[in-house]
Amino acid sequence: MSNTHTVRVAIIGATGYTGSELVRILLRHPRVEIAAITSERRAGEKFADVHPHFHGILPHRLESVENLAAYELDVVFLALPHGVSMDFVKKFHDERFRIIDLSGDFRLRSPAVYAEWYGKDHSYSDGFRQAVYGLPEMHRAQIADARLIANPGCYPTCSILGVLPLLEGGMIDPAHIIVDAKSGTTGAGITPKPATHYSAVSDNFRAYGLTSHRHTIEIEEQLMAGGARAHAVQFTPHLLPVDRGILATIYSYPSSKATEERIHAVYAQRYDAEPFVRVRSEPPTLKDVRGSNFCDVHITFDRRTRRIITLSAIDNLVKGAAGQAVQNMNIMFGLSEETGLDQIPMNP
Amino acid sequence: MSNTHTVRVAIIGATGYTGSELVRILLRHPRVEIAAITSERRAGEKFADVHPHFHGILPHRLESVENLAAYELDVVFLALPHGVSMDFVKKFHDERFRIIDLSGDFRLRSPAVYAEWYGKDHSYSDGFRQAVYGLPEMHRAQIADARLIANPGCYPTCSILGVLPLLEGGMIDPAHIIVDAKSGTTGAGITPKPATHYSAVSDNFRAYGLTSHRHTIEIEEQLMAGGARAHAVQFTPHLLPVDRGILATIYSYPSSKATEERIHAVYAQRYDAEPFVRVRSEPPTLKDVRGSNFCDVHITFDRRTRRIITLSAIDNLVKGAAGQAVQNMNIMFGLSEETGLDQIPMNP
Amino acid sequence: MSNTHTVRVAIIGATGYTGSELVRILLRHPRVEIAAITSERRAGEKFADVHPHFHGILPHRLESVENLAAYELDVVFLALPHGVSMDFVKKFHDERFRIIDLSGDFRLRSPAVYAEWYGKDHSYSDGFRQAVYGLPEMHRAQIADARLIANPGCYPTCSILGVLPLLEGGMIDPAHIIVDAKSGTTGAGITPKPATHYSAVSDNFRAYGLTSHRHTIEIEEQLMAGGARAHAVQFTPHLLPVDRGILATIYSYPSSKATEERIHAVYAQRYDAEPFVRVRSEPPTLKDVRGSNFCDVHITFDRRTRRIITLSAIDNLVKGAAGQAVQNMNIMFGLSEETGLDQIPMNP
Amino acid sequence: MSNTHTVRVAIIGATGYTGSELVRILLRHPRVEIAAITSERRAGEKFADVHPHFHGILPHRLESVENLAAYELDVVFLALPHGVSMDFVKKFHDERFRIIDLSGDFRLRSPAVYAEWYGKDHSYSDGFRQAVYGLPEMHRAQIADARLIANPGCYPTCSILGVLPLLEGGMIDPAHIIVDAKSGTTGAGITPKPATHYSAVSDNFRAYGLTSHRHTIEIEEQLMAGGARAHAVQFTPHLLPVDRGILATIYSYPSSKATEERIHAVYAQRYDAEPFVRVRSEPPTLKDVRGSNFCDVHITFDRRTRRIITLSAIDNLVKGAAGQAVQNMNIMFGLSEETGLDQIPMNP
Repeated sequence: MSNTHTVRVAIIGATGYTGSELVRILLRHPRVEIAAITSERRAGEKFADVHPHFHGILPHRLESVENLAAYELDVVFLALPHGVSMDFVKKFHDERFRIIDLSGDFRLRSPAVYAEWYGKDHSYSDGFRQAVYGLPEMHRAQIADARLIANPGCYPTCSILGVLPLLEGGMIDPAHIIVDAKSGTTGAGITPKPATHYSAVSDNFRAYGLTSHRHTIEIEEQLMAGGARAHAVQFTPHLLPVDRGILATIYSYPSSKATEERIHAVYAQRYDAEPFVRVRSEPPTLKDVRGSNFCDVHITFDRRTRRIITLSAIDNLVKGAAGQAVQNMNIMFGLSEETGLDQIPMNP
Repeated sequence: MSNTHTVRVAIIGATGYTGSELVRILLRHPRVEIAAITSERRAGEKFADVHPHFHGILPHRLESVENLAAYELDVVFLALPHGVSMDFVKKFHDERFRIIDLSGDFRLRSPAVYAEWYGKDHSYSDGFRQAVYGLPEMHRAQIADARLIANPGCYPTCSILGVLPLLEGGMIDPAHIIVDAKSGTTGAGITPKPATHYSAVSDNFRAYGLTSHRHTIEIEEQLMAGGARAHAVQFTPHLLPVDRGILATIYSYPSSKATEERIHAVYAQRYDAEPFVRVRSEPPTLKDVRGSNFCDVHITFDRRTRRIITLSAIDNLVKGAAGQAVQNMNIMFGLSEETGLDQIPMNP
Repeated sequence: MSNTHTVRVAIIGATGYTGSELVRILLRHPRVEIAAITSERRAGEKFADVHPHFHGILPHRLESVENLAAYELDVVFLALPHGVSMDFVKKFHDERFRIIDLSGDFRLRSPAVYAEWYGKDHSYSDGFRQAVYGLPEMHRAQIADARLIANPGCYPTCSILGVLPLLEGGMIDPAHIIVDAKSGTTGAGITPKPATHYSAVSDNFRAYGLTSHRHTIEIEEQLMAGGARAHAVQFTPHLLPVDRGILATIYSYPSSKATEERIHAVYAQRYDAEPFVRVRSEPPTLKDVRGSNFCDVHITFDRRTRRIITLSAIDNLVKGAAGQAVQNMNIMFGLSEETGLDQIPMNP
Repeated sequence: MSNTHTVRVAIIGATGYTGSELVRILLRHPRVEIAAITSERRAGEKFADVHPHFHGILPHRLESVENLAAYELDVVFLALPHGVSMDFVKKFHDERFRIIDLSGDFRLRSPAVYAEWYGKDHSYSDGFRQAVYGLPEMHRAQIADARLIANPGCYPTCSILGVLPLLEGGMIDPAHIIVDAKSGTTGAGITPKPATHYSAVSDNFRAYGLTSHRHTIEIEEQLMAGGARAHAVQFTPHLLPVDRGILATIYSYPSSKATEERIHAVYAQRYDAEPFVRVRSEPPTLKDVRGSNFCDVHITFDRRTRRIITLSAIDNLVKGAAGQAVQNMNIMFGLSEETGLDQIPMNP
């Protein structure tokens, strides 16, 4: 696109946290025009009545997706639940706009794997052929040309970026990776549920989804793409009494060629040019990245035990969802990757 | 100043929350250059080592204030404790730069009142003659020309904006105003203290400073400037288990000319052109304004009791401190008042 | 009853916070035997599966209320929503057991007032004639003989105990009482709702139910029983990001006979013999009473403004619900009022 | 001791959380008399002024330890920082009372190991010969006769109980145990510090003490007592935004003889008779044990990866400190182990 063109976007399904966060970012993006925001359930209502913090900032009303035909669109963001998103991708297969799907529907390598981990058949197998896994730090080139982006899950973004340089650099045994991940509650969505009722979360902490969380296979597929033995990743999610943020503590075993210096070197080298990955000399906290698109990574070699501990922190709604989606959009439309993503972390 | 000039600023005392928040805002302000950031105690250290969320964003080191002479400065922000700030204002009295003081040192009408409420003598009486109380919604014209701005306190900003239209419009009895205010802990500063130790605040709530909080007199002086009887404002602060935000619940009694319609009309009229005051039809929450420069106001007339309840919400670090300081700077330098202050509230 | 008799109790509707808290207290009560715990919706399940913290402590299964006939019962606690409770009271009208109703169904003085404030007709008017308002500090004698106790609301308990000595002692103008109350979320129940979703409450704060909360009339009726003019109480509830606890900040105006000394004297005198009201010289915090049956009260006379500020703190699930219900039970069965209620506040 | 004798106790150093929690438990213990509570720094003040939630419950004043000679004592609890406690143990070496030391000073196997991990020389080597590690589930018999109990650390209690049956049963490879532990802030004590300032913890999360936390060696020494290779345990602590509670997520590899059934069987068998360890079929949360002496354990065998995940949850101030100390006292004085420790978890 030309350097002065405006990217015209629509957001499909904007009543949740991801939709709201997309609007927060896109509304201040200097090259974007938000053409339409949709919700089938609350069509007709003002966006600012659903998300009151936008009062006086955004005049848009929520529309039905049926209205999209009225707009010239460059890209559509799908902020829908998995299982629903695939039907919209299918429905839009002949449209000229490009699609960034924030659900899990096209992240895995095949409909069969999807069915195994999501427990339901996939309704649009053709999508898998087009979909590019939208982690810019891994797949930047393909993202640029993609028509359909499968925007990564929050846990996978945090976990993969934490351990990737070790795997790529051959620094660890790929068969033994343990990801102990802790997430804020916004990852569980805006719909009230017993598990995210205030008093169930506040002053509390729990593990959940042991051995079976869907993000396990997403992490494995991306990390093992190079052919390492399968079933290598142990992934355990936990629910933190915080709104936003994921911290992954990753344990691995050094390979024979690994030294403490080499380990630090592969991180420095791998992420030096990455605008959103910060290699930190101190353990990062969630507030160090809150509200921003940063992924903060810290690496420790334990000389006593000869194990490696990696810490990785993101804001699950930004680098783990809406921010990364905009980063992908920037790549797709030839914009500087940081455009509109210069939010400074909000701490405290 | 010309429309393309850059405002060169220094921040004095940047190890606290207010200093950090000033940097968060000013760094993304399109017309500002941060020339220097000072701290006597930690001079020489990198700003990003003191506030790690700025890692990779800001290269500045903290300097001693003695270094300021090396810079051409247009304005200096004082983010210092009360009692300390006055000495810097005095020291800077011959400098060409303008001063925005975020402490309480020049907010009251005289050294005598200061001494009474702050419990110590004032060291720079001359400052009172120059100082303009920097609440743009009240004193915009004087702010434009001021050399020294006394940036308002967080509680007073929230309280005054909540009730001002009622007083100006003659809608209430000025002798009976009760402000029951609840604040997050960042208002108490970054220095660890028993009262702001995690377990003292978390899952807890308390009132403090009953009958004697310094912001009481600040609210009274501003509200009673028109000559109403003194000692009218009852102010009770409380400490919330939240980081940011103040909600003031204000009780008052309608005057004979007040009607429900007139009351709503004075708010609509008074704040219609104000860029940062949003009159809300629903009670605002702290997250509706968090991270932004908004003050959200809601007004209720209780027909049964014939009392008026006003709710007013701000982010104490933004509209209650750093954001309002930048708003004042914009006015002082002929910039559009909203420049650099378009942060959308972060919710959740 | 004889001094060694055991009180046989049933708890009706034990899937919520109040039911769970009743079990927490009654299970360690030295004179109580929990005969049955009911829930229509989850009958057949183990109580400890619904409330997992009771794992290994309590073997009971939830039963249908239809099973109650199988038990010899001395007293039944109704931990049901208002509007549901009345039907059970009606159904039980011929039973020999006594009833402690923790809902709002029989707290007001008439079905007409109930209909006005609760927005629905009452189905069992006869209950109003029997019901005694179960605030021991006001109605101890009637409670002893009552067949039906209307256990007070959480906000009314906190508010009434805070201001009662002032009214009884003629120390204040009864026409101008403002109660600004702040409550934890357990007061809103265990059912997930948007307003109590974790991220709606966490790091947030709001007022709600302005001018119309049902506890307003409950407070008024109890405080104004002596014949003072109606419509005196302004009551504003707020939602705190905490699990448990209410703090009420109460503003009033001294009568001509009030002096600072007399005010403190009426509190000391009124509450000296009360086992659960602690007159505190410092403002109480929620954690000072958490998990206990205490109500902590603090009184301040503002010499400058000549207003009185009272702070009152309770645990809404204990003194505001289950604990007070057990206190009432102790009175009804001739036990020492403190039996089984010696929980020390859990802080932190 | 005879069955009706009262145990006379003193608590040394009662201004912190552990001291306060000891008083909460011992004050309701039916066989205990609290003779004295000491603090050098605040001697003379009322205990209830230091810990206001005890107002009206406990009349004791804090005394200097010099006053202890005036009391007949059976046992003394040391609730002092490590490095300080050892001097008191030394000072008391000729006293007739027994000692339960809640610090880390006598938990390790030798002064040399202590010096290595605590970074300072030990001043009372003789203590190591007498000290018994006070984990009743491992060392009940020795505890009964001990003169000096080294009460276990909070993390070690939680970690050891989580994985002990696997090790004892030969179900896992002892060389590869990873303990990812998350703790509330009370573990860091009552003294205000930057790391436990409210806004540093609230809505935040971090790892700390990577590879070097002192509890690492404590866990290793207890688990490896049977002779397994050293340096097996990887221990990573994290700071949760909660007051109380530790959850340890423990990863290990099954030995050749391990099967899913055998693994569950060793837990059932090992803990069946333990009054305070609950084997849970669902992942425990912190609130499931809060305020109680329970340790809740959950075991998962991942068939896909062939790894074992154990979850273990305690209240760090109870089973991780004061509660376990009282459990040890009960054993030492021939009382039923559960006496005074029947607190039901407070949830929410």
